[in-house]
Amino acid sequence: MKKNNELRKIQIVRNFTKHAAGSVLIKWGDTWVLCTASVEDKVPPFLRDTGRGWITAEYSMLPSSTGGGRKDRDIKKLKMDARSSEIQRLIGRSLRAAVDMAKLGERQIIIDCDVLQADGGTRCASITGGMIALEIAIKKLIKAGVLKENPIIHRVAAVSVGVCDGKATLDLDYQHDSTAEVDLNVIMTDDGRFVELQGCAEHKPFIDKHLNEMLKLAKAGLKKIFEITAR
Amino acid sequence: MKKNNELRKIQIVRNFTKHAAGSVLIKWGDTWVLCTASVEDKVPPFLRDTGRGWITAEYSMLPSSTGGGRKDRDIKKLKMDARSSEIQRLIGRSLRAAVDMAKLGERQIIIDCDVLQADGGTRCASITGGMIALEIAIKKLIKAGVLKENPIIHRVAAVSVGVCDGKATLDLDYQHDSTAEVDLNVIMTDDGRFVELQGCAEHKPFIDKHLNEMLKLAKAGLKKIFEITAR
Amino acid sequence: MKKNNELRKIQIVRNFTKHAAGSVLIKWGDTWVLCTASVEDKVPPFLRDTGRGWITAEYSMLPSSTGGGRKDRDIKKLKMDARSSEIQRLIGRSLRAAVDMAKLGERQIIIDCDVLQADGGTRCASITGGMIALEIAIKKLIKAGVLKENPIIHRVAAVSVGVCDGKATLDLDYQHDSTAEVDLNVIMTDDGRFVELQGCAEHKPFIDKHLNEMLKLAKAGLKKIFEITAR
Amino acid sequence: MKKNNELRKIQIVRNFTKHAAGSVLIKWGDTWVLCTASVEDKVPPFLRDTGRGWITAEYSMLPSSTGGGRKDRDIKKLKMDARSSEIQRLIGRSLRAAVDMAKLGERQIIIDCDVLQADGGTRCASITGGMIALEIAIKKLIKAGVLKENPIIHRVAAVSVGVCDGKATLDLDYQHDSTAEVDLNVIMTDDGRFVELQGCAEHKPFIDKHLNEMLKLAKAGLKKIFEITAR
Amino acid sequence: MKKNNELRKIQIVRNFTKHAAGSVLIKWGDTWVLCTASVEDKVPPFLRDTGRGWITAEYSMLPSSTGGGRKDRDIKKLKMDARSSEIQRLIGRSLRAAVDMAKLGERQIIIDCDVLQADGGTRCASITGGMIALEIAIKKLIKAGVLKENPIIHRVAAVSVGVCDGKATLDLDYQHDSTAEVDLNVIMTDDGRFVELQGCAEHKPFIDKHLNEMLKLAKAGLKKIFEITAR
Amino acid sequence: MKKNNELRKIQIVRNFTKHAAGSVLIKWGDTWVLCTASVEDKVPPFLRDTGRGWITAEYSMLPSSTGGGRKDRDIKKLKMDARSSEIQRLIGRSLRAAVDMAKLGERQIIIDCDVLQADGGTRCASITGGMIALEIAIKKLIKAGVLKENPIIHRVAAVSVGVCDGKATLDLDYQHDSTAEVDLNVIMTDDGRFVELQGCAEHKPFIDKHLNEMLKLAKAGLKKIFEITAR
Repeated sequence: MKKNNELRKIQIVRNFTKHAAGSVLIKWGDTWVLCTASVEDKVPPFLRDTGRGWITAEYSMLPSSTGGGRKDRDIKKLKMDARSSEIQRLIGRSLRAAVDMAKLGERQIIIDCDVLQADGGTRCASITGGMIALEIAIKKLIKAGVLKENPIIHRVAAVSVGVCDGKATLDLDYQHDSTAEVDLNVIMTDDGRFVELQGCAEHKPFIDKHLNEMLKLAKAGLKKIFEITAR
Repeated sequence: MKKNNELRKIQIVRNFTKHAAGSVLIKWGDTWVLCTASVEDKVPPFLRDTGRGWITAEYSMLPSSTGGGRKDRDIKKLKMDARSSEIQRLIGRSLRAAVDMAKLGERQIIIDCDVLQADGGTRCASITGGMIALEIAIKKLIKAGVLKENPIIHRVAAVSVGVCDGKATLDLDYQHDSTAEVDLNVIMTDDGRFVELQGCAEHKPFIDKHLNEMLKLAKAGLKKIFEITAR
Repeated sequence: MKKNNELRKIQIVRNFTKHAAGSVLIKWGDTWVLCTASVEDKVPPFLRDTGRGWITAEYSMLPSSTGGGRKDRDIKKLKMDARSSEIQRLIGRSLRAAVDMAKLGERQIIIDCDVLQADGGTRCASITGGMIALEIAIKKLIKAGVLKENPIIHRVAAVSVGVCDGKATLDLDYQHDSTAEVDLNVIMTDDGRFVELQGCAEHKPFIDKHLNEMLKLAKAGLKKIFEITAR
Repeated sequence: MKKNNELRKIQIVRNFTKHAAGSVLIKWGDTWVLCTASVEDKVPPFLRDTGRGWITAEYSMLPSSTGGGRKDRDIKKLKMDARSSEIQRLIGRSLRAAVDMAKLGERQIIIDCDVLQADGGTRCASITGGMIALEIAIKKLIKAGVLKENPIIHRVAAVSVGVCDGKATLDLDYQHDSTAEVDLNVIMTDDGRFVELQGCAEHKPFIDKHLNEMLKLAKAGLKKIFEITAR
Repeated sequence: MKKNNELRKIQIVRNFTKHAAGSVLIKWGDTWVLCTASVEDKVPPFLRDTGRGWITAEYSMLPSSTGGGRKDRDIKKLKMDARSSEIQRLIGRSLRAAVDMAKLGERQIIIDCDVLQADGGTRCASITGGMIALEIAIKKLIKAGVLKENPIIHRVAAVSVGVCDGKATLDLDYQHDSTAEVDLNVIMTDDGRFVELQGCAEHKPFIDKHLNEMLKLAKAGLKKIFEITAR
Repeated sequence: MKKNNELRKIQIVRNFTKHAAGSVLIKWGDTWVLCTASVEDKVPPFLRDTGRGWITAEYSMLPSSTGGGRKDRDIKKLKMDARSSEIQRLIGRSLRAAVDMAKLGERQIIIDCDVLQADGGTRCASITGGMIALEIAIKKLIKAGVLKENPIIHRVAAVSVGVCDGKATLDLDYQHDSTAEVDLNVIMTDDGRFVELQGCAEHKPFIDKHLNEMLKLAKAGLKKIFEITAR
């Protein structure tokens, strides 16, 4: 059993599939997410003729990816799953923070995060894996001469922390996550600044002390994650 | 012009409309939200026959509520607005944290937050106003003998803080919000614990110092808000 | 209790909200409708390059606006409520009858009628309140020099009449409406001509005599309504 | 060319198709509507266990039924056509007025009105043809011993009248309809009472004199229609 | 009762309705399908500026067209019926095989196949009837000088064959179809080549011998069908 | 380059993911499909209380799975992709042919086929991989004592054949498929009988000789495939 300040094993399979500009299978413990980056020449209407680009993300779980029963596809209910919608907005905001949109130029990169197998922490795996897929796609754009300059300002990654049985704990798997009193997702840059903080204590409100302990664990964890994901 | 540690004027109109079990018009500066609480005897499928209740929220902006042009209704696009979806999940989680579901019993309370006029901070106004609507509805259930015991554990309220021109600032209105480097929504209980933290720095990642300053301002602001909303 | 030839109390709150070009809260007894007018520079496809404008309306009830239980939002079922659809077509046709589309020029005015509280007669309140919101918006366009000439030909207003216990009755509230044998909505111009007549006797077909009595009451009622809504 | 007090030729093909309980092809000039009646044992939720029945209608135009270009199917836009929605509510209300729901018992009859070819007056043809399909279906229920007593109280039929070039005119075809100043649909019982009146003067408000002339023409027209549709 | 190598009676009513460019009612035993061809000047995006045209098909069953209970309209469920979707793709592919798209020029012909009454073999009736509607529409385009040359390469038609009680059988009606071990739809050109083969043996896989017998019957049947549909 | 009677390399990764009852990653050349089998205790309404089970399939392509540009998710358009709908019906019918529904008992097995990477032949890979996932799931049900007897009657598999440059060719990859004159999908049992035949010659109708050559190649190919997929 892993200790409260340990990460699960993280494995990065670059170029997993062949059609997308960037493709990464991230295996984070038993959580597997296929993260791909696709480049399009058109941008959302509010950016047309501004010379600026955009990063957006889509997140989805395969029907068979979860324990506790098959998950219906969104199209069956004709509704985007609300949790997925919340998560993909988070992924999009986090990855946009990594890029200088003026340097990216008037193009859009779509990060698709498809969960093949879920065991807790899928949003953090998606952000972390999506960052790598984004880097691969951007390297190709630079190599092809489409981009003159690297638009990536800093790298971002994410990790979850929580409070389990009163004790701050790093990197919650599904079993921990579902019983944790607090669940805090921390998204940071590789120079140690916060991009997003999303903490939720539906079952038991938390205090400053726990917040500080969790943030400390998250920073240490992210330091290791940036080492793993760097080349 | 208000100072960086000041709140906008907050006005609570209880029993604004007559049909809902609880109805509150909260006027928070120029942000007006109609918050109502409706009680239903049925609960979501996963709670049937558990004896436990549920609180859920719906959030919507009237088409004419925003500056910068009319907002299409969701039904026109057949899609729930993704931002609304994210916000109503936050409202629901925050208010569920206020209630002991076993004491509520097998019934559901739906908090509808309809924004009549928006000027920044609609999600915080919704949580704060929704809490009061919820209290009114629960008082009626107690008075009617439906509930034996008050299921409310503590009250919750929300406020936004941000960093504007490098300075931590309390209670952002639309003009501040759209230019802030960081936007942090803090949801707390009336005994000073955190329920949710949602911080986003899409444009400029932030550092510990700013986080601490923002949290300090939020706590002071929430103290005043709890005084305003209590009777 | 009001007499069969009396109107309920009608109150007009002009400029209720600040973002829309025209905004009116009409309180007609316990029926409250927020009517706003938004101006857009684009027109529906069939009017492009004709130099002619368009008026359209959208009608919706807030979930908590009705007695007898909360009403689900349309987006939940992914279907426009059929009754709302019928009503907003009526509002649109009625208000278009008030305006010279050539003088309006190639722009569209959208009248949003959002029912905050319902107690019968919401469609008549929407038409009557919508007309005032439309006038406010048009005055602004004239003042801003966008329109040279006032495109309003005449003002329109609406009132419901019915037959209750065999007796023609003016201005049905919810209790009357739901028990009336006949329900006739009369929309007229301020010079006494008919714009729309919508009479429905699902439960008891009616005779000429009743039609004539109802029309007489409606005309007298509308005369008073035009006095109330004029400035 | 037909005179202003004449009806177009009306032809009733009973039992046009074989699967529905009642099936009628009504050819009203060049307007052809296939009206069928289907009997179901279940009723809408609000009628369960009341012993009362229900009549409802659905109206749709085939894509190739209209002049002036093919009409997209509703399913392509995922939206019920708003005009169709308004019309089918009118058909349903009109036909419900013909039936004693207690005598019908706890079953529902669905009247499908599918326009094969449109040339004005499709809603009136639908009501008139739908009434006959309903009668055929009910006769079968009586013959089969399902119904003891005939639940039909009176027959209903519909005709349109209008004002064309200042002159009241009976039974508008498409060419007349699209240029008429007023368009009034009159639905009556066979004993001369009104079931619905739907008059619309979007382009030119009308006066009492025209209303009276139109109603007179409609009554005379409906008398002939009841003769044509009776057996 | 018809023999295993006999066709049901097929009747072609050309120019059944008046608005579409081509309109055919095909009565194939008790299966009646209204097939119409509508010409549009726009083509799907992937063909713009290629000078090439397109043929597409839509298939739908009227709610009252089937035995065994009324069929809900697609719009009620907000979902295209999956069987209809599969069938209309087959009709579209089959009819596209009949036409030289370069000669058709940059326009689209939509074939609407609306089943008025179903008794087995609706997809074959749709293809066969749709071909005739297509021919009528194209003749009009040639007559109007829009097309210089006839783009039709060959005519296509369709018939179903199956294995019933171990015996290959031509032209299955509903009763046969629902009990057949195999159901094979054969679409051919009038010079005896295959356009589509769709065989399905969900209940009992079949052998070469049966395939050969079925194909032989289908060829003989299609020869007769081409005689019936030719003028 | 592979010969016209050769198969691409087929690789079967059993138990690829952990939550589904059966999980197979089939790599067929560069076509990769994740096929999973999920068991549910409920059956579709028409099978309730019959003691019989059901097999159904869902097919979807990940947005990044195709060459030639990213594919939008179905939920974005609120419409099931029509090609996917056609394919999943084919997979479902093919796999149902493999199972004795009475022996399966009143439960449903859902086969999810999610294409991770597409290079032609995804429907054949889905049927072939889906069969293996189905077998794994059924073995578990037998092992767990839920099933007394093996409900699998025979195994099924699928392969595509076509005519390329006038020559019958086995196992078309994307490049072949998109230029083939004919595309025939052959689904057979392991004892050499046909389950489905789906041949399409949109661009060039084909003759008996080609049909026979294609069927011969398909049979030989399927023989090898059954060897590869058996254990």
